[in-house]
Amino acid sequence: MIHILLIVSSLFTFSAYAAVQDFCVADLKGPDTPAGYTCKPAAKVTTADFVSTLGASGNTSNIIKAAVTPAFAEQFPGVNGLGISIARLDLAAGGVVPMHTHPGASELLLVTQGFITAGFVSSANKVYVKTLKKGDIMLFPQGLLHFQVNAGGFTSVAFASFSSATPGLQILDFALFANDLPSKLVEATTFLDDATVKALKAVLGGTG
Amino acid sequence: MIHILLIVSSLFTFSAYAAVQDFCVADLKGPDTPAGYTCKPAAKVTTADFVSTLGASGNTSNIIKAAVTPAFAEQFPGVNGLGISIARLDLAAGGVVPMHTHPGASELLLVTQGFITAGFVSSANKVYVKTLKKGDIMLFPQGLLHFQVNAGGFTSVAFASFSSATPGLQILDFALFANDLPSKLVEATTFLDDATVKALKAVLGGTG
Amino acid sequence: MIHILLIVSSLFTFSAYAAVQDFCVADLKGPDTPAGYTCKPAAKVTTADFVSTLGASGNTSNIIKAAVTPAFAEQFPGVNGLGISIARLDLAAGGVVPMHTHPGASELLLVTQGFITAGFVSSANKVYVKTLKKGDIMLFPQGLLHFQVNAGGFTSVAFASFSSATPGLQILDFALFANDLPSKLVEATTFLDDATVKALKAVLGGTG
Amino acid sequence: MIHILLIVSSLFTFSAYAAVQDFCVADLKGPDTPAGYTCKPAAKVTTADFVSTLGASGNTSNIIKAAVTPAFAEQFPGVNGLGISIARLDLAAGGVVPMHTHPGASELLLVTQGFITAGFVSSANKVYVKTLKKGDIMLFPQGLLHFQVNAGGFTSVAFASFSSATPGLQILDFALFANDLPSKLVEATTFLDDATVKALKAVLGGTG
Amino acid sequence: MIHILLIVSSLFTFSAYAAVQDFCVADLKGPDTPAGYTCKPAAKVTTADFVSTLGASGNTSNIIKAAVTPAFAEQFPGVNGLGISIARLDLAAGGVVPMHTHPGASELLLVTQGFITAGFVSSANKVYVKTLKKGDIMLFPQGLLHFQVNAGGFTSVAFASFSSATPGLQILDFALFANDLPSKLVEATTFLDDATVKALKAVLGGTG
Amino acid sequence: MIHILLIVSSLFTFSAYAAVQDFCVADLKGPDTPAGYTCKPAAKVTTADFVSTLGASGNTSNIIKAAVTPAFAEQFPGVNGLGISIARLDLAAGGVVPMHTHPGASELLLVTQGFITAGFVSSANKVYVKTLKKGDIMLFPQGLLHFQVNAGGFTSVAFASFSSATPGLQILDFALFANDLPSKLVEATTFLDDATVKALKAVLGGTG
Repeated sequence: MIHILLIVSSLFTFSAYAAVQDFCVADLKGPDTPAGYTCKPAAKVTTADFVSTLGASGNTSNIIKAAVTPAFAEQFPGVNGLGISIARLDLAAGGVVPMHTHPGASELLLVTQGFITAGFVSSANKVYVKTLKKGDIMLFPQGLLHFQVNAGGFTSVAFASFSSATPGLQILDFALFANDLPSKLVEATTFLDDATVKALKAVLGGTG
Repeated sequence: MIHILLIVSSLFTFSAYAAVQDFCVADLKGPDTPAGYTCKPAAKVTTADFVSTLGASGNTSNIIKAAVTPAFAEQFPGVNGLGISIARLDLAAGGVVPMHTHPGASELLLVTQGFITAGFVSSANKVYVKTLKKGDIMLFPQGLLHFQVNAGGFTSVAFASFSSATPGLQILDFALFANDLPSKLVEATTFLDDATVKALKAVLGGTG
Repeated sequence: MIHILLIVSSLFTFSAYAAVQDFCVADLKGPDTPAGYTCKPAAKVTTADFVSTLGASGNTSNIIKAAVTPAFAEQFPGVNGLGISIARLDLAAGGVVPMHTHPGASELLLVTQGFITAGFVSSANKVYVKTLKKGDIMLFPQGLLHFQVNAGGFTSVAFASFSSATPGLQILDFALFANDLPSKLVEATTFLDDATVKALKAVLGGTG
Repeated sequence: MIHILLIVSSLFTFSAYAAVQDFCVADLKGPDTPAGYTCKPAAKVTTADFVSTLGASGNTSNIIKAAVTPAFAEQFPGVNGLGISIARLDLAAGGVVPMHTHPGASELLLVTQGFITAGFVSSANKVYVKTLKKGDIMLFPQGLLHFQVNAGGFTSVAFASFSSATPGLQILDFALFANDLPSKLVEATTFLDDATVKALKAVLGGTG
Repeated sequence: MIHILLIVSSLFTFSAYAAVQDFCVADLKGPDTPAGYTCKPAAKVTTADFVSTLGASGNTSNIIKAAVTPAFAEQFPGVNGLGISIARLDLAAGGVVPMHTHPGASELLLVTQGFITAGFVSSANKVYVKTLKKGDIMLFPQGLLHFQVNAGGFTSVAFASFSSATPGLQILDFALFANDLPSKLVEATTFLDDATVKALKAVLGGTG
Repeated sequence: MIHILLIVSSLFTFSAYAAVQDFCVADLKGPDTPAGYTCKPAAKVTTADFVSTLGASGNTSNIIKAAVTPAFAEQFPGVNGLGISIARLDLAAGGVVPMHTHPGASELLLVTQGFITAGFVSSANKVYVKTLKKGDIMLFPQGLLHFQVNAGGFTSVAFASFSSATPGLQILDFALFANDLPSKLVEATTFLDDATVKALKAVLGGTG
């Protein structure tokens, strides 16, 4: 029986030596780095760090009739360093996820309820658009403008997986009209007229 | 009006120069490389390359009462080079996805129906296990042994996203018992006894 | 003297064995891969593959009064696999490089003549804008909307370096108005009104 | 002579500006990140950070008659961020390194004494096994199950290099039988019978 | 009007959730990591972090009649994590940037004034050399020995972009003759004779 | 028994779907890419692709009394894409591996016989040198000048592992003196005098 103890102890020793970097649960209070957040000490990591839920519907009582609930590194620290994350998308009837990009990730959308018309535009200015039903999947390559629109008369639900723990998000209308980028520059660089730019700035809270 | 044509032509020209590498839809007949398959010519890429479906239930009429339907680069060439892929998991009552690893990817599981008990073991030999319900998500860091077991009395469904277009899959029992790895080596390296190894080899079609 | 020959031959032998992967000049006729083009055979590579010129002014006789001359992998195959490329930017008086993104690269702009007002918007919707003079440099992180506008009364010139051999380019107005993305979808996902969308589609050659 | 000083000072100045990131010796007390440990200040780095020894035999007086002595980032902080590490393997007569995986690295084994039978199993369930003698090398691709067994009647020694500073290590028997993973789950996911699982749990200290 | 507020608040909420990792401006006082410096808090980042100037001529009143002014992560913290950086090169008449390597980056040189003869040597020991004029660009693949020499009778200027925020720099003569590497080792490993080594050590401040 | 067949067939089916990218044995006749060679078809891969030998002494009957025997991708195609490779180093009494760099890899040296004095110089011009004995290991970070010299009166042997399948190799004396780089340029960029340069060019076969 003493031999058994020996093997246990010798293997455990080896295992303890080598047991690093399986994962790096984000310490959100620690500094961020170009590769992600610093790691929570392994001894403090529990199952709860690897499990979360996107089971609840988002609140779609807003003008776009849509809600996006992310499980990125900030909301779900377990994904830090693993190169993957996910978000839930609820689209009430008439709901829209406006034109946007993810600067740091490709997206894979899975429709789990209803009908969604989704599309993206490539660098070569080609449009890829499709109406998806339950069970369908669609890809949006990294950094390209894309959108999702409810295509049924009732609530649709989808889950978007990303190739990064921190995919980022740039909503086009917000980038153009909801900050202090001067109207003159918006107009010069988008060919939109002054009235349109000012109207949208008024709606979206932009200044300048 | 001539100016309009000029801008169109000048911008289109620029766009055409630069329009490369948004994506690299796999040419499955072309050679594979360490970074993925070679690309289908851009001119031949259509929306169909970016859309697929996992809407159909897999056939669970087998002894593990489970089915896995992958949308990896081989089945869904659009993911090639994008660092993401997905698979559908159907688990009938009593269904099991046996202990396995993905050598080249982390996994993010989303339960869309039923109850699933899932878990993984870390290099430090710590167990992370949880029974998940609809809407729950769970992470399995790259290369670690993990499993999923139906925890309800009826069919459960989940979708697993991966941080690679080619996550790979190594099912433990198959690696040990369903090939020609000599029983003696299996026994020596797993501490399983000869009877157990030979019985499982017989069941799983292994030789040696 | 025989020893000398020995060292030469022995070292050359070693050198010949090991001499791979210093560079991978693109074979533009070969297949593309997720990591770049396949390589031109080393024996056919000459100094000309590593040298090019951006010395000539681009033609700014167009409505944006701007020209962009890229030296990306397609125009300058030597950059393939090296993670860097460059483009020349000419802006006549009143010239504009419209709002755009590079889905696959960060950009570092160097002004070599004149004055340019440049800016980008972050995912957090914050605007970073500055008027640059000769010798100034400015960064545009990967995938974010940005622009350059001539800020002098005469021609300005700049050179933009990129963190990729194939940075890609998506010009906002082209993505929205110069293809067959249906007007209804453009309107639903940008909050622009029908008249504006149709007017810009007319100008930029879009349909639908 | 004044010119000499000028060159020295001007070049030293440049050199001092640019001298970063040659290496990143791990500060094991600092936080870990997804890309490795934070760096020890360059000024405190000495030759000792880049040199270590694996010259001593490991203690093989245990039931597997084997010892593994790693020089990973935790034992040899100089490898941090360099994408390489090494371990020494001693196998007494009858010694075995049990079936295991490295979740984060490929391995290259070099036999320096004796005879070792080594093998791995691919995702496609194909077995690659070979008896190696002194001077032989063998590859074990990332994340795949593999093993090493002494094939001589006396002590064998090998050195395993890894493509990561933190290759990780998951020993199959430990993952299955030396923790609190419930026997029922082990049985359901491995097809091993209850008696076998409980016997191995008893030997290896597992509970549940 | 209440709807407008709803959309603003709902989208802003989403944006705030997701707005991470667009950039990682270096906190030079924080620890370094294998992937770059830790990030300055996003709230403290301003336009000034993304803008700098290389407009001033470097001081070429030294024996090599050359000056290099880097904008690497240490001088220009905005580049941290973006995979790009730049340096200005001033070469007075007769000026030389001595034989050197960048261990961690490829270089793309752009001549903006005068004439520069530049070259590199490959692993296969092939020489690629060219005299460049204003507007010409030349590549120096990662880690290879290269140099730049003024080829006109007056000051030349160039800008070198790099595929890393921290390209590093190893000047050959300094590595060999300006430190305490023993002359005997220099001689044994370079085939230079004792007199040459000692003379250069004397000039460049080397000892040993 | 029919159930057994079902499980076997269903699991094998899954396994077959997913079995890609465990490895990518180089097809040396196929094109090279920035990420390595294209892959030999999986069906043709055998154990022999993963096993090789460095058991034979290299021929040190040359003026440097040294031999290097690489197992890089060209000699050992199994390492392609795995981020690791190895070389054997034989140093007879008085043997020297001259000053050199590996542009694309860090090196980890293991001495298996004799005594070797090895060293490298950092970008900050600091020397790290040490005499190693059997069992000692030493690191040479990517792209930095380093060397190995026999430090005993008899043959020494070492094995160098690299963090790349294609580490590259640039021998300083060859880069300077064994090609057609004009003597004038060598002299201008190294501060060596004309006599020295011409003498070494004569010995090493250089021209110009």
